[in-house]
Amino acid sequence: MSSPNRFWRIASRPTGEVSAANFAWSEAPVPAPGAGELLVRVIYLSIDPVQRYWLSPDATFGPPAAPGMPMPGRVWGVVEKSPDSRFRAGDLVAGPGTWSQWCTLPVAMAEPVPDWPGIPLLAHTSLFSMQALTAYFGTLEIAQLRKTDTVVVSAAAGAVGSLVVQIARNHGCARLVAIAGGADKCRWLREKLGADHAIDYKAGDIGAALDAACPDGIDVYYDNVGGAILDAVLARIRPHARIACGGFISHYNEAGHAQGIHNFSMLALKQARAEGFSCFEYVHRADEAFATLRRWFEEGRIGYHTHLVDGLERAPDALAGIFRGSNLGKTVVQVSAPDRRTAP
Amino acid sequence: MSSPNRFWRIASRPTGEVSAANFAWSEAPVPAPGAGELLVRVIYLSIDPVQRYWLSPDATFGPPAAPGMPMPGRVWGVVEKSPDSRFRAGDLVAGPGTWSQWCTLPVAMAEPVPDWPGIPLLAHTSLFSMQALTAYFGTLEIAQLRKTDTVVVSAAAGAVGSLVVQIARNHGCARLVAIAGGADKCRWLREKLGADHAIDYKAGDIGAALDAACPDGIDVYYDNVGGAILDAVLARIRPHARIACGGFISHYNEAGHAQGIHNFSMLALKQARAEGFSCFEYVHRADEAFATLRRWFEEGRIGYHTHLVDGLERAPDALAGIFRGSNLGKTVVQVSAPDRRTAP
Repeated sequence: MSSPNRFWRIASRPTGEVSAANFAWSEAPVPAPGAGELLVRVIYLSIDPVQRYWLSPDATFGPPAAPGMPMPGRVWGVVEKSPDSRFRAGDLVAGPGTWSQWCTLPVAMAEPVPDWPGIPLLAHTSLFSMQALTAYFGTLEIAQLRKTDTVVVSAAAGAVGSLVVQIARNHGCARLVAIAGGADKCRWLREKLGADHAIDYKAGDIGAALDAACPDGIDVYYDNVGGAILDAVLARIRPHARIACGGFISHYNEAGHAQGIHNFSMLALKQARAEGFSCFEYVHRADEAFATLRRWFEEGRIGYHTHLVDGLERAPDALAGIFRGSNLGKTVVQVSAPDRRTAP
Repeated sequence: MSSPNRFWRIASRPTGEVSAANFAWSEAPVPAPGAGELLVRVIYLSIDPVQRYWLSPDATFGPPAAPGMPMPGRVWGVVEKSPDSRFRAGDLVAGPGTWSQWCTLPVAMAEPVPDWPGIPLLAHTSLFSMQALTAYFGTLEIAQLRKTDTVVVSAAAGAVGSLVVQIARNHGCARLVAIAGGADKCRWLREKLGADHAIDYKAGDIGAALDAACPDGIDVYYDNVGGAILDAVLARIRPHARIACGGFISHYNEAGHAQGIHNFSMLALKQARAEGFSCFEYVHRADEAFATLRRWFEEGRIGYHTHLVDGLERAPDALAGIFRGSNLGKTVVQVSAPDRRTAP
């Protein structure tokens, strides 16, 4: 362990768009785990839009994230040292770590990665992740998806959205409309993920596109973006519509006041419901979700789609890239060499 | 029946504020009921903010309301002619009528007014009305009021709001905050209806007033107004808050675009829920609500509060008055002489 641990510190809080300038490439000895902590060699680092939110000075949830601190992020890796019989050196583990080559994890917050035959570690970063719980329970519990519903999903090519599209397709719905930025993503959503229609929100008026794709209105909206797309959907909801408020990526980079939503009153007019939720509320039901997702995966009915970025040094650009829409699926940084189970 | 029937026709759709100029005082013979219709002498006419909404060209619910037509409105009156054994001349009846001295009601849409000892007809226009179902189920079912909740009610001196305040007080909650316009209404809400705090939204910054009244945030918001007050509440919701979207009176008189809501994303941040609803979804449970409200009334724990306007000729001014905040409680026009059961 004489090689140093490289990691990213937070250099400054972003104002507006997050960029590499907000992070400082740092070096320190590999940390010595404290009492009740594992030492983990990081293989995969999760890069998520919510990490931008954590950096805002008025964040009301998420891990501590202030200038000077190591940047937090979820990691998957190999246990190198363990003080606890539940984990042994060589075990695969996941948990709330940092943007680093090695990190410590409290045993209480570390999760063993189950050794499912045929399921590589990379699949766990997507299909069996917290975002999978978000997508699964957001679609089936919060939005109460029914087979007769017209469903719209925004940021549909992203980590959560690409799972929502596939979950909705597998569960069954009358019409599945995916919104993403760019023709390539739209083609992928139609041809690979099974969307009936894909709308390129950068290509024209979102309202007109929704009118064309959903002539009878919208029953379920899985919202990952907020802003103007949310407003356009609200204008077109059907009676008893359900909006799962999963995120609002369009706001995260806004320094000042969020854009106003003009059609909130449609909730009253249409006896509709908009509901926020957190995957943490569903952790106790993870087995149920993962069993279904695993069965669908083994039947070839769902895939995991990752935007794999090679090398920890590229993590800041990977985060900034999400806001430019450069990812297809879940953004993951490969930090160190995969072990036998990590071949995709 | 040689005396004429006086009634109000819609003269024009209002642009901006509704006024008497939008209605034409008209005269015609007393209508002859068609097959399956009752002839009703109107005693009380309901005047409601939603009637302004019915007049807008893009209304998506409510009775037909176009220039030239009699103005629709809920009525309570006496059956004068009935083709059906369920109703006899002299019975008290309620239903969707018009702003008129006499109107016809399809038997299928007419509701007998129950003859409850000690409950005058006027009480039925408030405490045992559709608005009472709105207030009751909006508070207890949609908002799922709990005894530990901090509750905020807007338009709290209005027909629905004054019932919500009393229902919340009787059901039990930790802190009950009523918002209304003017010091007199605020005093009434505190001293007569049992609000812990009353905020005069015309007197100063609504956000600062909410901070003072709800220092730990808001669990339940019964929204009758939308707009800036909704936005200020959203900024202060607690985790798992519930917003019952009962109406949005602040928008009804807007000709153009509704004011934007900037804090919609708080639903996602706080895992909160905003839900619209209609009293029509709860008609099948009216007995349950009215039994509770009647018990509370007989125990002296709830009252009906009407702003009684004398004479059908004043109906247009009564509707315009709601938007100026001139009513305390439910606005009702007395159209004809009460019978034995109508003495308050």
